[in-house]
Amino acid sequence: MSKYIVAIDLGGTSAKMGVLNENAEIIDRWSVPTDISQEGTLIVPNLVKAVQAFLNRENISIEEIKGIGLGTPGTINHEEGTVVSAYNLNWDKVQHVRDQFQKAFPVPFFMDNDANVAALGEQWQGAGEQADNVVMVTLGTGVGGGVVIDGQLVHGINQAAGEIGHMTIEFHDPIDCTCGKKGCLETVASATGAVNLALKHIDDFDGQSELKSMIQEGKDISAYLIFKTAEDNKDAYALYVVDLYVDYLARALSHIANTLNPAKLILGGGVSGSGEFLRSKVENYFKLYTFSQIKETSKIVIAQLGNDAGMFGAAQIVNNGLKK
Amino acid sequence: MSKYIVAIDLGGTSAKMGVLNENAEIIDRWSVPTDISQEGTLIVPNLVKAVQAFLNRENISIEEIKGIGLGTPGTINHEEGTVVSAYNLNWDKVQHVRDQFQKAFPVPFFMDNDANVAALGEQWQGAGEQADNVVMVTLGTGVGGGVVIDGQLVHGINQAAGEIGHMTIEFHDPIDCTCGKKGCLETVASATGAVNLALKHIDDFDGQSELKSMIQEGKDISAYLIFKTAEDNKDAYALYVVDLYVDYLARALSHIANTLNPAKLILGGGVSGSGEFLRSKVENYFKLYTFSQIKETSKIVIAQLGNDAGMFGAAQIVNNGLKK
Repeated sequence: MSKYIVAIDLGGTSAKMGVLNENAEIIDRWSVPTDISQEGTLIVPNLVKAVQAFLNRENISIEEIKGIGLGTPGTINHEEGTVVSAYNLNWDKVQHVRDQFQKAFPVPFFMDNDANVAALGEQWQGAGEQADNVVMVTLGTGVGGGVVIDGQLVHGINQAAGEIGHMTIEFHDPIDCTCGKKGCLETVASATGAVNLALKHIDDFDGQSELKSMIQEGKDISAYLIFKTAEDNKDAYALYVVDLYVDYLARALSHIANTLNPAKLILGGGVSGSGEFLRSKVENYFKLYTFSQIKETSKIVIAQLGNDAGMFGAAQIVNNGLKK
Repeated sequence: MSKYIVAIDLGGTSAKMGVLNENAEIIDRWSVPTDISQEGTLIVPNLVKAVQAFLNRENISIEEIKGIGLGTPGTINHEEGTVVSAYNLNWDKVQHVRDQFQKAFPVPFFMDNDANVAALGEQWQGAGEQADNVVMVTLGTGVGGGVVIDGQLVHGINQAAGEIGHMTIEFHDPIDCTCGKKGCLETVASATGAVNLALKHIDDFDGQSELKSMIQEGKDISAYLIFKTAEDNKDAYALYVVDLYVDYLARALSHIANTLNPAKLILGGGVSGSGEFLRSKVENYFKLYTFSQIKETSKIVIAQLGNDAGMFGAAQIVNNGLKK
């Protein structure tokens, strides 16, 4: 009987692999290094070998596998089962990922973008608590996103749904974004964005501040330092920067909530490590900007699964795919 | 054989009623006045009578009806099949709408909010061209919205999805909104919003303008006048106001598009009567604010069905409901 799902969360350094049983429990997990040499052409064969080795090692027959799910960087063509433009994998050229898996394993194979599968993982087994409608915003080096409606990922007409990091959020005095636009959420609400704000607004602030002194002395600062100095030391300039940061983030979340009224708006990624300190401050602005019937029902929450979100999401795309 | 759908678009003045065949053609249509006396308790009985009269008149048996769909103002409880807070119907108290229909007709009955059914109607038989993902924004006295994902209306955790008119869009110098917030899209991009902008910004503009003179002479102005004077007379202040209007609207549309990458963003309601003049100007700003892969694929279009959108949508909620 088919009862296991093989879930793979592929990244530029390693692929996290896991096997889930029907109760969504991870019964085995391991990781394999990502070898991006030879234009990344070894990556999928290595994943296939790793799955084969697991089956042999555990003496599990392929008939016991319901399906294989993969979360991957890059742009996915769902019809063709291909991936391209995954630069951290050296995948400049189109990779026939699904074909390679299906040649090796006669079981259903599904894949999706890594930001999307992380959102689905949190919706299913994390902070989303299996609510039908959930939006996740990942506050890392950049800002990513994933939108789950009726338990399914939304892809959009050009596979670009969830580009929340490129929502234009500052119109008056915008910072240039790597995407070619100006004023994107990512320029002010990523880890990099927090640093951008600290550097940009230094002359707006007159008081005493350890953070301000560090910047003036030319020391390196980080989002982690800004949030830590704000929370632990009540550093006045750090608190000022955090206030700008959470205001921008709340604007974006309010736009999403006013459109979709999701049960949960999940904050993930490195900056979300700041936890309740971040969440409560974002929520204060969010309530100012969000329609009355929505602000009390669309909840801002912190992600719970950390690095496992991708693996759970990769498993759930198998469940969702088999349901369709 | 069940082949007909009865579709009802209930409004404060009249209910538009139609019967659609399996090819989505309206084979019969009529309207009945909405009698809001006696706290609106006559409304549903009158709709029931009108459906019964149609069946008798056309000698159609109830077995030939696949289902009945109703678009209604107010807040709907889908589980209970009730409507409340439809003030233009005098429905201050909870109305057991579904029970009344199902007592009279032993066929499936579905209902949804009027803004939602209009969006679904346009998605299905209008400018949406049956694309999976479509968002409609209605620019009337207020600004309404409806979100269709995977061909189905999105309701949200508190039935408040699509409150696009209450997206906060002006943060620096916001106008108070009737909802209790400030800076809502509705305060600047409804018909009322266009007038708000014309009154608010009059001192920003120094040149010659018929519109400005009218305002200074205390004459009544309207969104229609502003857009007409801008398009036909190239009135400089009217063009200035239209530029502010389309910029705000484009910001909201870009937020929606960056989140959902829908195939179509449909502009409906009275102001959308300005057609291509409006659409092209909104698109110019939209492209500035929207992620590269989205701005070329999420198209801004003008609604096509006018007042029939609600009737088509009321029919399609029957089709969608029966599929589930």
